[in-house]
Amino acid sequence: MTDTADKFESSACSNPLAQIRALHPRVHCIVNEAAVSLTANVLLACGASPCMTHDPHEVAQFTNSSDALSINLGMLTQSKCRAIMIASDTASDKQIPWVLDPTLCDRSQSRLDFCTGLIKNRPSALRGNSAEIDSICRSMDLTREELAREHSIVVMTTGEFDHVISDNRTREITSGHPWMESVTGLGCAFSALLAASLTVRQDPFDAAVEIAQTYGSIGQTAAQVSHGPGTYAGNFLDCIHAESIR
Amino acid sequence: MTDTADKFESSACSNPLAQIRALHPRVHCIVNEAAVSLTANVLLACGASPCMTHDPHEVAQFTNSSDALSINLGMLTQSKCRAIMIASDTASDKQIPWVLDPTLCDRSQSRLDFCTGLIKNRPSALRGNSAEIDSICRSMDLTREELAREHSIVVMTTGEFDHVISDNRTREITSGHPWMESVTGLGCAFSALLAASLTVRQDPFDAAVEIAQTYGSIGQTAAQVSHGPGTYAGNFLDCIHAESIR
Amino acid sequence: MTDTADKFESSACSNPLAQIRALHPRVHCIVNEAAVSLTANVLLACGASPCMTHDPHEVAQFTNSSDALSINLGMLTQSKCRAIMIASDTASDKQIPWVLDPTLCDRSQSRLDFCTGLIKNRPSALRGNSAEIDSICRSMDLTREELAREHSIVVMTTGEFDHVISDNRTREITSGHPWMESVTGLGCAFSALLAASLTVRQDPFDAAVEIAQTYGSIGQTAAQVSHGPGTYAGNFLDCIHAESIR
Repeated sequence: MTDTADKFESSACSNPLAQIRALHPRVHCIVNEAAVSLTANVLLACGASPCMTHDPHEVAQFTNSSDALSINLGMLTQSKCRAIMIASDTASDKQIPWVLDPTLCDRSQSRLDFCTGLIKNRPSALRGNSAEIDSICRSMDLTREELAREHSIVVMTTGEFDHVISDNRTREITSGHPWMESVTGLGCAFSALLAASLTVRQDPFDAAVEIAQTYGSIGQTAAQVSHGPGTYAGNFLDCIHAESIR
Repeated sequence: MTDTADKFESSACSNPLAQIRALHPRVHCIVNEAAVSLTANVLLACGASPCMTHDPHEVAQFTNSSDALSINLGMLTQSKCRAIMIASDTASDKQIPWVLDPTLCDRSQSRLDFCTGLIKNRPSALRGNSAEIDSICRSMDLTREELAREHSIVVMTTGEFDHVISDNRTREITSGHPWMESVTGLGCAFSALLAASLTVRQDPFDAAVEIAQTYGSIGQTAAQVSHGPGTYAGNFLDCIHAESIR
Repeated sequence: MTDTADKFESSACSNPLAQIRALHPRVHCIVNEAAVSLTANVLLACGASPCMTHDPHEVAQFTNSSDALSINLGMLTQSKCRAIMIASDTASDKQIPWVLDPTLCDRSQSRLDFCTGLIKNRPSALRGNSAEIDSICRSMDLTREELAREHSIVVMTTGEFDHVISDNRTREITSGHPWMESVTGLGCAFSALLAASLTVRQDPFDAAVEIAQTYGSIGQTAAQVSHGPGTYAGNFLDCIHAESIR
């Protein structure tokens, strides 16, 4: 994938984490239990205000008073599915930007079906690994580019390389570190941070590219002071915090 | 708020964490998923024995065999509400001390209603931030002092300053560190530790003041050896452990 | 308990974590929320691929595509009980090795009943502390040795000393560190790692002994570079990672 239509211009002084800290957005997250603590901590580290409730009776009120929404399909339950429908409906109605993270939809047909249904509720961005994004594309009989264009969403594939695809733009990001795959929830937390970044940038493609570059760069910096994936998690949060107050 | 009626006298040798380690109390906790691991680890770090189950079918038996109970309203579900009712009823019946932590009740009317209902079950202490405590007071048409007096509970507001209010006493505590707000669950974990401290001190007001001072002091010590909120969490637990074996 | 019938012979070059990394097994885990993140991180640290979903509608498909299963009874709910029945049935049918971790079954009669029912589904190994294993034995009116023999399972008791009992073999392991009891979920994570180790070793008794020795040895190494149970958790994961790439 090449930069065929790259309209993105990085600003030398752009620091999305500092902008998030300045705006202090409320980010509502529905996320699996393995990632919920780290996701909240990533948001707190840059001054965003996370809320993680997933009860169908409460989620509309919480989403309504949030600035962004992140929905992660890991460890899905029937009750969470109902909450996710309500939250994404609310976000759509109120034009609250939201991110869909289709965790392991490639390993469960019912989860994949639920995921493709959600895409009709117009998330701002879809963020998954190659296996997840490709299973969605196959299921909808679309290429990644068609999925981005026809549904007006930023399609982001993360892994060794990150790809960001928008209507007529693509971008590849090569930063990051292998240990990012060895800490459960760092990908889910990225989706929530992407949701936060949508509140400080007009263009979702630019937001996605910038925050992915920042996250990958932090991933490299944190590795330099860590001895393995265990200490890496704490150092990663420290680096997010440091970058946000730079 | 001034020390208008401060009867508290700090003992030079008082160390509530060492007392908790000596008594090894069983603390049953119903707490949100984002805080559950840190809450258990805070209790384990000072030798308390945590149990976190929240199934309505099991919670009575677990509460019955516990020395204290901590109820946190974060990430509430209908099933957790039933479990919380059963656990607080059990604690009331058996005179097991319990703490109510009304997480984000200021952002959900149904949660606020549930919370004010629970207060009738006579928690020993109510611990929240200013927005949470004030929303409860407004809903019950009481001042913080009236809430403390009329319901015979210690009302504790934590934040930059902690305030502890009892029947005829108030106390302000100024220790702590800003990073305590940047680690998800440190407040929830404090509520559980407060519950544990109620098992080693006769007077809930004294228990609350002492453990708040200790927690705030540990919050300062841990910051001195940390580079940000990520490494802070681990160091905070180390400091609790060190203080408990001092 | 003595080494009455020890057929185990440790290979000088045996490194179960490196073997797990080489095989990259998928391990499905149903585990309590306090331990779910650490359990996933322990598996990721040695290159295994964890999945933690517990919805009754999805769990069969996930278990079917896994190489091993770990079931932990902490923070049980009715929905999780249904998922556990489905997962253990699936594992039995497909001869996928699985581990049963009876967390706190000594404190709840309904959990104990559920646990003894599960044993009929032939787990490869049962791993708990003394109180848990002994309550199961009392309930089934069997000694630990009879439980192992009559149900053809490896019975493993962990604590200050670990005991591994098989059909006609017993083994005591004396490694480990007291801080392992002060980090919530390290025991649950061990059960999941034991499940992973069953995919790289033919004999479940040998697998259990080897992985217990490795885990205990890592527990000692991690303590040398830690200041308390808080920093210990991160260092423990680093040591697992380091051992797996040695």
